[in-house]
Amino acid sequence: VTSDATPDRIGILGGTGKLGAGLARRWAAAGIPVVIGSRDPDRAEARAQELRRDIPVDAAELSGASNLAAASAPLVVAAVPAEGAEELVADLAGTLAERILVSAISPLAFDASGPRPAPLADGRSAAELVAELAPAARVVAGLHTVSSVGLSDLAHPLDEDVLLATDDDAAGDVVAAAIGHLSGARPVRAGPLRLAGTLEALTAVLISINKRHRVHAGFRVTGLER
Amino acid sequence: VTSDATPDRIGILGGTGKLGAGLARRWAAAGIPVVIGSRDPDRAEARAQELRRDIPVDAAELSGASNLAAASAPLVVAAVPAEGAEELVADLAGTLAERILVSAISPLAFDASGPRPAPLADGRSAAELVAELAPAARVVAGLHTVSSVGLSDLAHPLDEDVLLATDDDAAGDVVAAAIGHLSGARPVRAGPLRLAGTLEALTAVLISINKRHRVHAGFRVTGLER
Repeated sequence: VTSDATPDRIGILGGTGKLGAGLARRWAAAGIPVVIGSRDPDRAEARAQELRRDIPVDAAELSGASNLAAASAPLVVAAVPAEGAEELVADLAGTLAERILVSAISPLAFDASGPRPAPLADGRSAAELVAELAPAARVVAGLHTVSSVGLSDLAHPLDEDVLLATDDDAAGDVVAAAIGHLSGARPVRAGPLRLAGTLEALTAVLISINKRHRVHAGFRVTGLER
Repeated sequence: VTSDATPDRIGILGGTGKLGAGLARRWAAAGIPVVIGSRDPDRAEARAQELRRDIPVDAAELSGASNLAAASAPLVVAAVPAEGAEELVADLAGTLAERILVSAISPLAFDASGPRPAPLADGRSAAELVAELAPAARVVAGLHTVSSVGLSDLAHPLDEDVLLATDDDAAGDVVAAAIGHLSGARPVRAGPLRLAGTLEALTAVLISINKRHRVHAGFRVTGLER
């Protein structure tokens, strides 16, 4: 992955949530302009203002806008809950055409026994549904298990890999380059988009580990050259 | 986990296969007696003889027998392909009663696009099916992603964690203790048995990474105290 692939702007759908805000902070601090989107643009701008306080003064621009405005960036991250994601992506399908769209969506359910994966009835992953709803978008599944606590702690590098699943290798390169700017994180190409369901389900395992061991855990792949 | 939990004998169903043989070699080398089982006891004994050549002379006993004999150890590992596992476990259900049974079974399918998870039609994991077929066994899901190449290379410690899913904490302690004897491997309690499906599916992701990157990869959980 060459640094040439680094996108010149990143839009984050659901950027006011924990994962979205954490990504925005890290990427802006690393010099990549970020637009965080929300259903409510005023809320997004208020959140952006708050996030700007925590990043170096020489960081890149971090602004808040509508999800529609965020969706017009060359790289768009869907950091939204599974509930509502379907409608949001369908609404934005036109704008998302030809954009690289990272699905960080993990459909989960929670009960007294903790979290569990909650895939769609037909076994499809959220990322595969997103790819159907926005057929001209270049979908990459990833960023499911990145700790929002870790992302928000700018003083420390992350210690985890980001598994990516996509059928679009060139889009994967751009996402990998962007992940390379999240200090301490390493992108790992896992395979085709049809493996996205396992990456999404892994979020339930991660949350379960976090609860059981009272930690903020991450995953690394060993045996790769670094 | 105290070393007191270490089982005094381990039986391996399908012990003539790559994963089973690799586990047998490591455990015997670490001083735990191992019985590898096979449908064909003569084949199991031939394989045991071959494996004994590669382990230190002061290693623990490593013998070959029928799957039935292997199933009578206090800790039993099902290291069999998903095809045939159902019939095998149902046949051995009586012997497996009260035994700790590790399901390392990963139902996968392969085609031109590589491996993918192939869970049962009703979405259950192989480990949950095993628990139904042998209702008195104490089932722990784990050992899915351990590299058989790494296991067989006794000169080098492993560099990976073993995620465990079980509803039986005491059984999990025994399995964790046994994994602690696989040099370099660390057991990580992931949560209840219902998370087993994700651990099984992760095998497809691992094989995909191995093929794509031409490596023998493993997974580590970061952020836990070591």
